[in-house]
Amino acid sequence: MSQNNAHYYEVQQCSKQWRAFLAAFSAEFTSKGELKDLRAFMHRLGRTMALAYTIADGSSLQSLEDKMNAIWSEIDWGWVELIEEPESLVVCHHVSPLKIAFGQDALAWSPALLEGIYAQWFEALGMDESLRLSQRGDVLEYGQLIIFELKKQLNESSYFTRR
Amino acid sequence: MSQNNAHYYEVQQCSKQWRAFLAAFSAEFTSKGELKDLRAFMHRLGRTMALAYTIADGSSLQSLEDKMNAIWSEIDWGWVELIEEPESLVVCHHVSPLKIAFGQDALAWSPALLEGIYAQWFEALGMDESLRLSQRGDVLEYGQLIIFELKKQLNESSYFTRR
Amino acid sequence: MSQNNAHYYEVQQCSKQWRAFLAAFSAEFTSKGELKDLRAFMHRLGRTMALAYTIADGSSLQSLEDKMNAIWSEIDWGWVELIEEPESLVVCHHVSPLKIAFGQDALAWSPALLEGIYAQWFEALGMDESLRLSQRGDVLEYGQLIIFELKKQLNESSYFTRR
Amino acid sequence: MSQNNAHYYEVQQCSKQWRAFLAAFSAEFTSKGELKDLRAFMHRLGRTMALAYTIADGSSLQSLEDKMNAIWSEIDWGWVELIEEPESLVVCHHVSPLKIAFGQDALAWSPALLEGIYAQWFEALGMDESLRLSQRGDVLEYGQLIIFELKKQLNESSYFTRR
Repeated sequence: MSQNNAHYYEVQQCSKQWRAFLAAFSAEFTSKGELKDLRAFMHRLGRTMALAYTIADGSSLQSLEDKMNAIWSEIDWGWVELIEEPESLVVCHHVSPLKIAFGQDALAWSPALLEGIYAQWFEALGMDESLRLSQRGDVLEYGQLIIFELKKQLNESSYFTRR
Repeated sequence: MSQNNAHYYEVQQCSKQWRAFLAAFSAEFTSKGELKDLRAFMHRLGRTMALAYTIADGSSLQSLEDKMNAIWSEIDWGWVELIEEPESLVVCHHVSPLKIAFGQDALAWSPALLEGIYAQWFEALGMDESLRLSQRGDVLEYGQLIIFELKKQLNESSYFTRR
Repeated sequence: MSQNNAHYYEVQQCSKQWRAFLAAFSAEFTSKGELKDLRAFMHRLGRTMALAYTIADGSSLQSLEDKMNAIWSEIDWGWVELIEEPESLVVCHHVSPLKIAFGQDALAWSPALLEGIYAQWFEALGMDESLRLSQRGDVLEYGQLIIFELKKQLNESSYFTRR
Repeated sequence: MSQNNAHYYEVQQCSKQWRAFLAAFSAEFTSKGELKDLRAFMHRLGRTMALAYTIADGSSLQSLEDKMNAIWSEIDWGWVELIEEPESLVVCHHVSPLKIAFGQDALAWSPALLEGIYAQWFEALGMDESLRLSQRGDVLEYGQLIIFELKKQLNESSYFTRR
């Protein structure tokens, strides 16, 4: 797909209704805080957002991915891929509306919103509390790919402990 | 229209894409600040939002109302009526998405967003700086009507001074 | 709710993306056919549309209404009330986008689309084949209420025969 | 952009509200007619649709393209590029919602809708009546690019005669 088409889709995807509000929020927010505080605030918002949804089923990675994508599709926030690596579970979030909503420059802190959402969901599913979800590197593909990882500890056979 | 239909429309009007984010923002925000500070923050956001739009034409109240409604319609934020009273210009904003976005309880502070937007627009149009736009009373019609007023001073023949 | 607000919501509810196409379809369609043929065509389209959705659960009227409303809410087509009367089951469809999509004049035939959808759904649920769903009277409340009924036969104790 | 992202965007772009209706329309329509008749019908619908919009300004190709894109953007129908070739004016329509709305198979006839729209717009702008707009080849890029051309006649210095 050409960059023109990609740009068209990106812009249209973010609801017009809140675009100006979110841009104002982003401008106000950026002017006030340290990057660390901005990320912490977005992470907290993400955790609160996550509580509005229930991810019922973590019986398999595929089922978990499907449940998450049902939510993302309903609110048009892109889609996720869960990939098992030897030492970690990788969470690839594609085509989120964050770049258009909060702006290109805000990609330094806006992904912490997704980080908070995934952290909350994985904990609610019984993720071992010693594990921690964090963003891996910068955003990729012009803001269309944001990667998180859940680090596997030594001797852990599974990411989740069914409570 | 029945209250059921009114409720249906209210809920559907607020874009699903940002509803959970805005509810989280509202919860986080309410838990932190004093009402006065919340209103001041929303007023500032409103002023920043207003800058994204140009209200070119204030040559008549009707033309002004039309220009504002073109913007409100484009982003689906309801509609406005401008009414001239002997001592003030009354701004009636109907069916905004604020109640569904930020919640019923937030109607104590969320309308300050619209207050900031209108204040900015009127100032950009050359409103005499001694005038002030403020909210008049509480929200009406279950959150579907928010009224602001621009108070006319003695000896003022017009709200606007063309710069 | 004022008529102005009702009108605002009606217009905004119908997706801008297809409004011009549907108006053109309506104009073309009206100019060609007899009312009876238009209704038959819309009824057929409705039946085909209905197949895209599964109404899994008809165990109670309330559950059936909930399942239907989950679909209507997802595609923003208003909401339904199922009411049991002594001799019939009444299907009240509120605030459908039909009036804005196909136009005021088309309300003579456009409701046959909903008729086809409900007929298909009730049949799939095991409705006795001697029953028939049909529209009852004209649209009400300025096009915001369309009523259908499923006539109960003598000696029938239930509308549905579980297959 | 990956094919997955392209697919995600394509599907989300087409308004959920009318997707099932348009799919039913497409199924019914395809089962009835000859390809030639289907195209003629869609072309007519396109011409009627085009009348809902005014393309005020054809003073330059760039201005014309901008005006068309303002409409396409408002209703989220993708975007257009007008390219002047030695013997023709080429109209490249990108990322229209036609494929998702009417289905992959319908790409044999659904582009005639756009053909009708552009034909009507160019005629309203004063296009010489001896010219004719037609689709060039099949759809490209998995349905994301549809090309039309307006053939220049010998001795024509311009596509448009200002009336």
